[in-house]
Amino acid sequence: MKIGILGTGMVGQAIGGKLVELGHEVKMGSRSAGNEKAVAWVQQAGSGASEGSFADAATFGEMVFHCALGTAALEILEAAGHDNLKGKILVDLTNPLDFSKGMPPSLFVFGTDSLGERIQAAIPETKVVKTLNTIANPIMINPQSLGQDHDVFVSGNDPEAKAQVTNLLKEGFGWSNVVDLGDISTSRGTEAYLLMWLRLWQAFGDTNFNIKIVRQ
Amino acid sequence: MKIGILGTGMVGQAIGGKLVELGHEVKMGSRSAGNEKAVAWVQQAGSGASEGSFADAATFGEMVFHCALGTAALEILEAAGHDNLKGKILVDLTNPLDFSKGMPPSLFVFGTDSLGERIQAAIPETKVVKTLNTIANPIMINPQSLGQDHDVFVSGNDPEAKAQVTNLLKEGFGWSNVVDLGDISTSRGTEAYLLMWLRLWQAFGDTNFNIKIVRQ
Repeated sequence: MKIGILGTGMVGQAIGGKLVELGHEVKMGSRSAGNEKAVAWVQQAGSGASEGSFADAATFGEMVFHCALGTAALEILEAAGHDNLKGKILVDLTNPLDFSKGMPPSLFVFGTDSLGERIQAAIPETKVVKTLNTIANPIMINPQSLGQDHDVFVSGNDPEAKAQVTNLLKEGFGWSNVVDLGDISTSRGTEAYLLMWLRLWQAFGDTNFNIKIVRQ
Repeated sequence: MKIGILGTGMVGQAIGGKLVELGHEVKMGSRSAGNEKAVAWVQQAGSGASEGSFADAATFGEMVFHCALGTAALEILEAAGHDNLKGKILVDLTNPLDFSKGMPPSLFVFGTDSLGERIQAAIPETKVVKTLNTIANPIMINPQSLGQDHDVFVSGNDPEAKAQVTNLLKEGFGWSNVVDLGDISTSRGTEAYLLMWLRLWQAFGDTNFNIKIVRQ
């Protein structure tokens, strides 16, 4: 499949690299084509990898991964061009982290709204599926590295889009447990969990962890 | 040990009942002595159980469990009498749930502050240990009911108080994994997690679940 990536940071690079490895054609988008990090990523990821502007990546992808900083998430969607995303699946990995009030960060949307919902509202003709925002990027693409089963979550309004993303997470990324939380408003749950994740990171001293839901 | 309980709801009743079962003397406090729910609980819990006002429970307990609604938490501590709690451990199970903006609830403190911190700030000479606020009450006192290991968290400024509460959780309540998140500000993590917990409840249709941290 042709897949676009919005964002050139560690998450975009990890996801993009994995997708290329899985045989997909992946275009990494940034503010302007020729971005240093994107070019370096293309060289490293090899055949199947390309780069361009946000709009280039959005146009190229049949599915698009949003891997940018939460603070820039909506602005980047504008740069990508809402029309270029019409009818497609946007896999939303962003978190509304607010670093402006000191460390550890807080969230700039919370409780009665979420960044996932704001993104879906900005691009109503795109099927937004929020996922993978609850774990560090090495675990996103290599869940087996923790040696035990653990869970990833999907939130979104379109069941078929969620099924397609779930399939990619399972067959492609190697996740055994994908929990469907419900519609996009359930992003409020996974985004709020980030504050717990930050405290676990602080307590453990590393990000090599995730949660498993234990049920009766 | 003599233990006070603030709150007559399901959490207070479950915790109080378990503590009586463990051989402790437990006084359940409410707005005024003779509260119908507290009296019924005393009859059910049997020998070792008593009831009275919030101040009676705070004075009675060498350790006090705060099991009230988050919205009333600070007001109830005033009714209990800050002086009556001096030098003692307050086990804080409250969550800042805000039902005023519709269901599912949001939180009325969040991100850069927490109810745990507000409680500790209100009673600086009491050792506040936040715990058990991430699970439904039947699991709090019977963690084995889920059939697998899972985790409970403690947050607090006083290491000795946390050790004492951890010991009660392990030896008394049967928890095998108690994760020390750090000082009371880490309540921001467990309280924010509630929004995730609410979405899991919604997705599963029951509250018979908890999380286990999986680490490399």
